[in-house]
Amino acid sequence: MEKWIQRIAPINEEAGKKARHHIDQLTKPQGSLGRLEETAIRLAEITGDMFPDVTPPGVIVFAGDHGIAEEGVSAYPKEVTSQMVLNFVNGGAAINVFARQIGATFHIVDMGVAQELPPKGVISRKIRFGTANFLREDAMSREEAEQAIETGFAVAEQVIAQGAKCLILGEMGIANTSSSTAILAAVSGMDVAQITGRGSGIDESKWNHKWQIIERALAARIPDPNDPLDILSKVGGLEIGGMAGAILGAAAHRIPVILDGFICSSAAVLASMMCSHTKDYMMAAHLSQEPGHRRALEILQKKPFLDLDLRLGEGSGAALAFPLVEASARMIKEMATFSSAGVSDKS
Amino acid sequence: MEKWIQRIAPINEEAGKKARHHIDQLTKPQGSLGRLEETAIRLAEITGDMFPDVTPPGVIVFAGDHGIAEEGVSAYPKEVTSQMVLNFVNGGAAINVFARQIGATFHIVDMGVAQELPPKGVISRKIRFGTANFLREDAMSREEAEQAIETGFAVAEQVIAQGAKCLILGEMGIANTSSSTAILAAVSGMDVAQITGRGSGIDESKWNHKWQIIERALAARIPDPNDPLDILSKVGGLEIGGMAGAILGAAAHRIPVILDGFICSSAAVLASMMCSHTKDYMMAAHLSQEPGHRRALEILQKKPFLDLDLRLGEGSGAALAFPLVEASARMIKEMATFSSAGVSDKS
Repeated sequence: MEKWIQRIAPINEEAGKKARHHIDQLTKPQGSLGRLEETAIRLAEITGDMFPDVTPPGVIVFAGDHGIAEEGVSAYPKEVTSQMVLNFVNGGAAINVFARQIGATFHIVDMGVAQELPPKGVISRKIRFGTANFLREDAMSREEAEQAIETGFAVAEQVIAQGAKCLILGEMGIANTSSSTAILAAVSGMDVAQITGRGSGIDESKWNHKWQIIERALAARIPDPNDPLDILSKVGGLEIGGMAGAILGAAAHRIPVILDGFICSSAAVLASMMCSHTKDYMMAAHLSQEPGHRRALEILQKKPFLDLDLRLGEGSGAALAFPLVEASARMIKEMATFSSAGVSDKS
Repeated sequence: MEKWIQRIAPINEEAGKKARHHIDQLTKPQGSLGRLEETAIRLAEITGDMFPDVTPPGVIVFAGDHGIAEEGVSAYPKEVTSQMVLNFVNGGAAINVFARQIGATFHIVDMGVAQELPPKGVISRKIRFGTANFLREDAMSREEAEQAIETGFAVAEQVIAQGAKCLILGEMGIANTSSSTAILAAVSGMDVAQITGRGSGIDESKWNHKWQIIERALAARIPDPNDPLDILSKVGGLEIGGMAGAILGAAAHRIPVILDGFICSSAAVLASMMCSHTKDYMMAAHLSQEPGHRRALEILQKKPFLDLDLRLGEGSGAALAFPLVEASARMIKEMATFSSAGVSDKS
């Protein structure tokens, strides 16, 4: 793992400067496309190319079950993880709809669903049948955590080799907001109740139960705040490890990765601890309704594109933000300059 | 004009209720797609159809010159209006790029550019060679204002007849933020300096000059705050009248219309004064950097989809927001339900 993390290089600031210079000659008042201009510059810095392609994007959904679901922290029963994987395979979930809309390639990875899944349509990389209940014991071993990250990295490499020019990461795992909350609390020392949300929709009393379970689990596991593998193994999830690995994979191959909501951002925080350069390859899609998400984005120093009261996961928010990334790439490539179009510049 | 304004009906609340019921059965936690769910419901209310198509959208850019440009209120010389129309025809402007991305039909209408334009690629509906300088005299006659609205309505009808399922409106007209600011001040009585912005990018001293010119012009013209035609004729623009008419056209044909930035929203305020039902057919794309835009959206009671520091116009922000409208329509149409996918509902 050390070896390929060392392959991740800083972004190319020189390419960004060239992009800025070109954008300032396009037929529009300077700066008038706001965040799209910043995004086009960042795409140049990431890829080293002023005119990079971002299509087709590749959507990768990592699925895994969570032992902590036994504690009654989620609104949905645990079997929904595997049922939703089948829904992804059949194309009926929100992420399928949005992936089709943006012309993405679509990949669903079984990192650790508690049930056996039919092989068709699923990239089978099951590390174990769900994590252990991290209130009682470590979610997984350190070796399994490392394996999850390496698996995510390898799947990302494969999807990129098949032509994806931008990664969109999503997840499915009942109870995984509990795991993400524990990760964020471990990293930041923030108050658990303040960053615990309603997940897929729990009521007040279940919410009180949820943050207390997470607080007790953290007191029992004592993850090392400076060791991402320790955190992942003690309170993390297999799909969260997969996403962290895929983020490292995108950075190693110099392509942008669009972060979805809270769970994806907790994986991004772990990835950024393994290699700080990875932050610069990430773009934040949206601000979710999960209270911890805002804090995670602050740690990552990312400003989201969208704020639409989303809280679904699956990569749905990232897929919805992709057209803005595509528009940024098209803008710099396709717009005329003042001189080529014969338009007078500022008087 | 009275006759076709009477054709505009309220939205269909019954269709919205059916859409809400269906959305609540889709394989996702209830409410977890936030603004997209609201948008899908609104699309049902607008069209009367739970599963409406919004593709292809039709982009209509209305162009017109402004006599007030003589007063030195803009960063760009007046000839840029006609130069940019040629850029639109040649496909090199930002709106062309974004219209191609979303598969839109594209239409540019000469409502009143000060120069003769080559006929190719432009819908020629020139009412006059630019408005008069509204510091000195009325921008146009009441008859011309009415003609501008009727023209916008007719062009919208034509674009809809050709197959557009959603309208995206834009404009080009050097100095038209001055006209929009005057319209908004006339309607609302708000302080001119507070709603005057930097337009395409003027400095502090030019900005001071700009709001003082607008203030003096309003004192000289005294538009009737309750008469949209009086306001449009005294301080408006031909392209603003065209946009107001096109908004009325979308509402008359029960299709959604996505508002762009400040200038488009000032046209929307006039349209809503002519027929209050039209508000319900509008969706606000983004919050522009123009300070008056926020106030215009408050009057229209609209919450924008995007906040990306845009200030370009041309319909660019509306085109960038369109994929979210499309995603809403696809979500309700293409997602599986809990029962069809065999997914367990909340425990």
